[in-house]
Amino acid sequence: MKFKISAELSYKVKTDTTFFFNIQAAQTRSQLITDEQIITTPAKVKIESFELGTRKARFLRVQVPQTDYFKISYTAMAELKLKPVNLKRAELQVSTIPPEAVSYLFPSRYCQVDKLYKFADVEFNALKTTYAKVQAISNWIHRHVHYVSGSTNASTSSIETITQREGVCRDFAHLGIALCRAISIPARYFACYAYQLNPRLSCLL
Amino acid sequence: MKFKISAELSYKVKTDTTFFFNIQAAQTRSQLITDEQIITTPAKVKIESFELGTRKARFLRVQVPQTDYFKISYTAMAELKLKPVNLKRAELQVSTIPPEAVSYLFPSRYCQVDKLYKFADVEFNALKTTYAKVQAISNWIHRHVHYVSGSTNASTSSIETITQREGVCRDFAHLGIALCRAISIPARYFACYAYQLNPRLSCLL
Amino acid sequence: MKFKISAELSYKVKTDTTFFFNIQAAQTRSQLITDEQIITTPAKVKIESFELGTRKARFLRVQVPQTDYFKISYTAMAELKLKPVNLKRAELQVSTIPPEAVSYLFPSRYCQVDKLYKFADVEFNALKTTYAKVQAISNWIHRHVHYVSGSTNASTSSIETITQREGVCRDFAHLGIALCRAISIPARYFACYAYQLNPRLSCLL
Amino acid sequence: MKFKISAELSYKVKTDTTFFFNIQAAQTRSQLITDEQIITTPAKVKIESFELGTRKARFLRVQVPQTDYFKISYTAMAELKLKPVNLKRAELQVSTIPPEAVSYLFPSRYCQVDKLYKFADVEFNALKTTYAKVQAISNWIHRHVHYVSGSTNASTSSIETITQREGVCRDFAHLGIALCRAISIPARYFACYAYQLNPRLSCLL
Repeated sequence: MKFKISAELSYKVKTDTTFFFNIQAAQTRSQLITDEQIITTPAKVKIESFELGTRKARFLRVQVPQTDYFKISYTAMAELKLKPVNLKRAELQVSTIPPEAVSYLFPSRYCQVDKLYKFADVEFNALKTTYAKVQAISNWIHRHVHYVSGSTNASTSSIETITQREGVCRDFAHLGIALCRAISIPARYFACYAYQLNPRLSCLL
Repeated sequence: MKFKISAELSYKVKTDTTFFFNIQAAQTRSQLITDEQIITTPAKVKIESFELGTRKARFLRVQVPQTDYFKISYTAMAELKLKPVNLKRAELQVSTIPPEAVSYLFPSRYCQVDKLYKFADVEFNALKTTYAKVQAISNWIHRHVHYVSGSTNASTSSIETITQREGVCRDFAHLGIALCRAISIPARYFACYAYQLNPRLSCLL
Repeated sequence: MKFKISAELSYKVKTDTTFFFNIQAAQTRSQLITDEQIITTPAKVKIESFELGTRKARFLRVQVPQTDYFKISYTAMAELKLKPVNLKRAELQVSTIPPEAVSYLFPSRYCQVDKLYKFADVEFNALKTTYAKVQAISNWIHRHVHYVSGSTNASTSSIETITQREGVCRDFAHLGIALCRAISIPARYFACYAYQLNPRLSCLL
Repeated sequence: MKFKISAELSYKVKTDTTFFFNIQAAQTRSQLITDEQIITTPAKVKIESFELGTRKARFLRVQVPQTDYFKISYTAMAELKLKPVNLKRAELQVSTIPPEAVSYLFPSRYCQVDKLYKFADVEFNALKTTYAKVQAISNWIHRHVHYVSGSTNASTSSIETITQREGVCRDFAHLGIALCRAISIPARYFACYAYQLNPRLSCLL
């Protein structure tokens, strides 16, 4: 399948500013990105590309002088060559996961894994397979956390969500990741466009 | 039943200090306190008694000059005239609870009720009777929170206990109180000597 | 001076509800309240008055059946007989404060005094007089915490305000109270109408 | 200068376990590591080496069967070829820092940068040079946070340290990192042996 994807952001820039944007779609074996275009208004700004981390997240550093209106838009074609995942292959042991997945076991800003060990262990760890554990975590969140638009903000983290039991897609993802990591299942966050879903932008585990 | 009760506390007092002690047993209709004795070492310190709050908690204010060794001991006889509570009478509505119980619905230092409304409502509020709700809360804590000596400290509050799932008697009580209040059941904390229990001092809901 | 004061609140009541309102002005030696009127729409609801706590905060318990529109309005005349406070009298020692002030030393939901002892002690306690300490606390808040409308919510407490350094009047008051209590100065919260101030409703220490 | 360095850790292993150790000294241009030796008791365990992250932190994954006593010891020779840093070169702008430093601007588990923007901006950002800002942060921590052994634990993070004003070396480092990042100065954590310091193991910014 082929998709045309796009993003557009605009700002009032009160002082000369360095932006970091992470808006470009990931280049992976199963996702071919072509016809990429970055357009800015004003056109003459300094742009530099770089990648960060194991998964080579793509960043743009953009130097924008003071201006009442700065816009950056991104368009690209994405060709997906997805194959159904064999769930049996999803079984994994911390003893054999590839080294580059190990950092997805660590606590992070929004996933205070160290505070959730006991909860996750008692609720989910008795299940036999990795797949069953992840599904149980997903079901638990679905059953216990309510989607309430505007109920959280950019500082809300998984230990608040598990207590207050409401949030948005971002919070659901953070909690899922934290619970997986707490029982030694590597998990990471990514944002995607969900085709034919409304709204179309989602954060998935 | 009659009990002889006692408490003894000792301190190194590095500078002239005002202490507030809340060590005297409550005088209630069902608990007659007699033969009370407060003894201090050194003997000559200024002591003043007063009561605070709806339940007339008994406090001592004691002025202690600098000393390497200050001790206060309390002894009394407590005669209990307890009657079995009729659980039917435990049913209560926020529309009819006595005014002096209303403050036991409010959030407090260790019971951040406002952060637990959704959790408590979803988990316990569908039950029919107040008694069933309180019992479900008690069961939930028993099942989900582990008693781990030394796992918490004097700053630990109920929203940490519900996430981290371990604590001591004090934390169990704080969580129970917070969950009750979150579904409009007034609840308060008290400390008691539990006869023939080991250890004998407990915090109960 | 005499003031006419009023408040008006309206609700959509989705199910039979018990409200607690704390909207009546305090009756004190220096504030005489007359011509009080409580009017509700619909008129026929069950209303009960009671007082809570040392300072006899005035509450109304109102039983409201399901309705698309419930309104309660309060009007009264307040005659103030305020006398300038002699700041010398503001000097106080924990050894001599009246017993009814002792509970204003305790930690509370929004004032986690136990987490601020060290900060308050180092920053403010070296000053000689109680008055100087309170003024230093007030100045510190004024200098370090910014008034940002909408930056906090009903769950924000003083330990968040001291870190994040922004809030509204309520947060300023909570932090001031917490810092006072942390160095053994009793402090409590009250809400008032500030004459000729805009907005007119303020929370003061 | 040449140092012989060593570490030794021992465990009771209650069930077959996968350990991740990050105990090997970093190989850098200014630190030459030779004569490395990893010895375990029992000797026959499966060991695998790998590196993580931009700075190639060195990890060992060790599979240990259940045993009453497992020990791992590490020894190596470290030859330091350190050159004095020219502080002028420490001046840096977010517009020109190397891409691999960008991730050291992000919030992390212990450095909730997003909650400290206002504080750091007001306290430190008016200073002219990066060097002056970092020195001011270091001085602020030295002046305001007390070293109190045992006052914190593995879950303590920088927003708690800035409020409670006590901690150990790890907490000092977390707070310093968080405050640097909050004003766009990349900072990272590392652990080192401090020659002729007592205790010899320190966490430095």
